[in-house]
Amino acid sequence: MRILGIDPGLRNLGWGLIESQNGKLRHLANGTCRTAKGDLAQRLLSLHRQLSEVCARLAPDTAAVEQTFVNKDAVATLKLGQARAIALLVPAQFGLAVGEYAPNQVKKTVVGVGHADKAQIQHMVKMQLPGASFDSADAADALAIAICHSFYGAGTALRVKA
Amino acid sequence: MRILGIDPGLRNLGWGLIESQNGKLRHLANGTCRTAKGDLAQRLLSLHRQLSEVCARLAPDTAAVEQTFVNKDAVATLKLGQARAIALLVPAQFGLAVGEYAPNQVKKTVVGVGHADKAQIQHMVKMQLPGASFDSADAADALAIAICHSFYGAGTALRVKA
Repeated sequence: MRILGIDPGLRNLGWGLIESQNGKLRHLANGTCRTAKGDLAQRLLSLHRQLSEVCARLAPDTAAVEQTFVNKDAVATLKLGQARAIALLVPAQFGLAVGEYAPNQVKKTVVGVGHADKAQIQHMVKMQLPGASFDSADAADALAIAICHSFYGAGTALRVKA
Repeated sequence: MRILGIDPGLRNLGWGLIESQNGKLRHLANGTCRTAKGDLAQRLLSLHRQLSEVCARLAPDTAAVEQTFVNKDAVATLKLGQARAIALLVPAQFGLAVGEYAPNQVKKTVVGVGHADKAQIQHMVKMQLPGASFDSADAADALAIAICHSFYGAGTALRVKA
């Protein structure tokens, strides 16, 4: 099963694809969809195109997106929410079920503790996906989300009729 | 020029289409895209399909979306932001420039004051668009946004290359 993890962001949206077979994980690809500052509708359109191209090219069987951490900065929350909508929409348009995981659950699954830092996450992702090198910190996070989905959700995440 | 106004919401997304010709406004259509509670990715997919169908059928020349009011309820802000992303994305996918207006600017343009209530807005929208009846309060708000865009932005909102 090919599992796509997505770490949403308006400026940098990380994605990572792994294969899970008989409990074994393998790294397939990772990357980052980037948008420059400017008109919001055009940025969302660009994210949608880039992520659609990833789904069309790499044909994942299921996807997972990190839940947005709602913080006190409402403007940042709003921006992230808008990018997150694209991260949820695109896999659904490809007929995939989309899992959602809280950041702490991802960290706990991959590192063993809920408050790991980025360096720890990247170290453990490399341990579990030998040979993987990361396009960006966001792409590494996306691979961690895919690993989390392989443990919790991917087994039941069959293709849904879109 | 055919102007599409959109009032974003995850449960009810209002839309309204008007025609502006030589400074005269005319009501063409309005409606509401609705989603039931459930899987977020599927709700966003449903909104995307419904709004895409509206754009394909009614062929607007330009669009405008209300800016999200960032309030203290971060969870509500996040939900609205996700619906708003669809409201911005779909017109952009149809090659339209998308204007954005703060709620107060819409009210000030349509009613004359920035803190008008829903009844006042609906009354003034009916005055400016004789014969219009509203599918929902959200659709009435969407017509108000379209009227606002006809005054401020539509003149310069040419089709952009998608």
